[in-house]
Amino acid sequence: MNLHQSVLQGDRLALARLLTEIENDSAAGQQALNELFKNTGKAHLIGVTGAPGTGKSSLVNQLALHFRNPTNGDAARRVAVVAVDPTSPFTGGAVLGDRVRMRELSGDDGVFIRSMATRGSLGGLAAATAGLVQALDAAGYEIIFIETVGAGQTEVDIAKLAHTTLVVNVPGLGDDVQAIKAGILEIADILVLNKADRPGVEAAERALLGMLKLGHPTKRTIMHHGQAQTVESTDAEISGDMWIPPIRRTVATDGKGIPELAEAIAGHRLHLEKTGDWKLRDRARLESEVETLLQQSLVSRWRENVNAKKYEAMLEQLLARELSPRQAVAAMLNGDTAQ
Amino acid sequence: MNLHQSVLQGDRLALARLLTEIENDSAAGQQALNELFKNTGKAHLIGVTGAPGTGKSSLVNQLALHFRNPTNGDAARRVAVVAVDPTSPFTGGAVLGDRVRMRELSGDDGVFIRSMATRGSLGGLAAATAGLVQALDAAGYEIIFIETVGAGQTEVDIAKLAHTTLVVNVPGLGDDVQAIKAGILEIADILVLNKADRPGVEAAERALLGMLKLGHPTKRTIMHHGQAQTVESTDAEISGDMWIPPIRRTVATDGKGIPELAEAIAGHRLHLEKTGDWKLRDRARLESEVETLLQQSLVSRWRENVNAKKYEAMLEQLLARELSPRQAVAAMLNGDTAQ
Repeated sequence: MNLHQSVLQGDRLALARLLTEIENDSAAGQQALNELFKNTGKAHLIGVTGAPGTGKSSLVNQLALHFRNPTNGDAARRVAVVAVDPTSPFTGGAVLGDRVRMRELSGDDGVFIRSMATRGSLGGLAAATAGLVQALDAAGYEIIFIETVGAGQTEVDIAKLAHTTLVVNVPGLGDDVQAIKAGILEIADILVLNKADRPGVEAAERALLGMLKLGHPTKRTIMHHGQAQTVESTDAEISGDMWIPPIRRTVATDGKGIPELAEAIAGHRLHLEKTGDWKLRDRARLESEVETLLQQSLVSRWRENVNAKKYEAMLEQLLARELSPRQAVAAMLNGDTAQ
Repeated sequence: MNLHQSVLQGDRLALARLLTEIENDSAAGQQALNELFKNTGKAHLIGVTGAPGTGKSSLVNQLALHFRNPTNGDAARRVAVVAVDPTSPFTGGAVLGDRVRMRELSGDDGVFIRSMATRGSLGGLAAATAGLVQALDAAGYEIIFIETVGAGQTEVDIAKLAHTTLVVNVPGLGDDVQAIKAGILEIADILVLNKADRPGVEAAERALLGMLKLGHPTKRTIMHHGQAQTVESTDAEISGDMWIPPIRRTVATDGKGIPELAEAIAGHRLHLEKTGDWKLRDRARLESEVETLLQQSLVSRWRENVNAKKYEAMLEQLLARELSPRQAVAAMLNGDTAQ
């Protein structure tokens, strides 16, 4: 049986193997993804991001447990977690992550957890994450958490894969962290104030509300170059259906506030479906993936046909600072040294 | 007079205008960079990164003050700072950053500080930062700090622009942050333990030493696809010139440990020059910049010639999940739908 067929039949080992093939960007992984793609598009993709130390992993664990055992009479949902760890391959951070999580959710066939170490800088992390998510979606996981540690551009790119993005904050962090929050507030659909049993929770909530007023008076998602972007709305639009990111307090370590947070997530899904934003985000995500693949393909095609001697000669001129990087590229593409 | 000529003559306003043109990737900025490129390659580029709240800005301010007024008899150096802030355009974080810094270093013509907000996700941040650094280098700044907030892939990419990378840590951060540190330890040439007057500094130093032993037994920089990468060295290489990242304790708020840190920076520069790594890093940086520009050029050339109707048709098939993203790209490039 082919790998993709085993995955569709619920074989967990085959799924684990497929995810590795996708992370390695192997031909087998690419082919399986091509086959599985028609089975995707059903899962609710939930991004979870925020500064280090805000307790994102515990929060995702608790939400996973909740969706497996809903307290409000809903059916149990199959849940997957993709945790993107900015740890180096040799420290083994990602592997350790898997083990720590397993204690809480192990033995449940309706849960699949995968950690992913960031590797190199070939810009492939968001692409690889998109592939993992597609495989899990095709394998029938109905809710897929994409958890990123940190608040850099990579995290923002990965959050753009999601239908619903949770930005996690905690009371009492310093000004430096507040600046980071401001930067990722734009991508927040739901704000979580975790560790809400700590002092300073009122002040933190007021600060978040203030930033929300500054940043989200008029939030609207549009597409630009295949990316979902947030722009200011017109007055006419504001009178219509707007999503104002709600703030939810949680204490992930003891599960407090988790049902209310899960409800907000379900509410956002309804909002997306009602307004058509669900399809819009789906489209933006796929367009963005096509853009990235297109770039990679164009470069590798060009590289196959390039004259190695000419390339080296250009590099030498660059290092001697006779040509600027831009002039060197123009020369390689045009066969002359015009800018 | 042209913009680049004014910059070469030390006109600060012209330099500020040029940096804006570069950030906007305008034709004027590109042309000026082409002209100025032959004047680059002299500055010592120092990357400063680390988790939020570690006091990177204060540390860079203190180092800038030190290099302006060296206590060891060296000549004063001209210093520039490029601070990359992951804040959104509308919160104005970057602008505020400039003002806060200015109080400490204002009125000194030998200092130039520029904050840069991250914008969009077109992958242009590292490229724009490279452009700013080239302009400042050409304008005669001898030491250029590139300061990034956070520890994501973007920060790693930007750190790769530098000759010397400082990774800043503080005592007493949680496990989550430790994981991040492990990820960026690979890029550290010097480890700074800031806020060293806090409790837990001994334990933090032991933890860093432990991670260093794990990660840097055999550090060596090579080039791979135009990127400087760290690989394991052979035994023969280990017996030669190795750089073991030193740990320096500082209290940036009162300047403690700054002369010793400056000395470590100067020592790393000497090491780079002695081993030839200075040229190697220069080459890796320029190759990486050429790669990025090449990618952008290939995509925009392709886009100019693409049939818009055919592109839309492919997108529709993608959204209907009749074609996978990879199949859609193959179809657009080949004119057929083979994988």
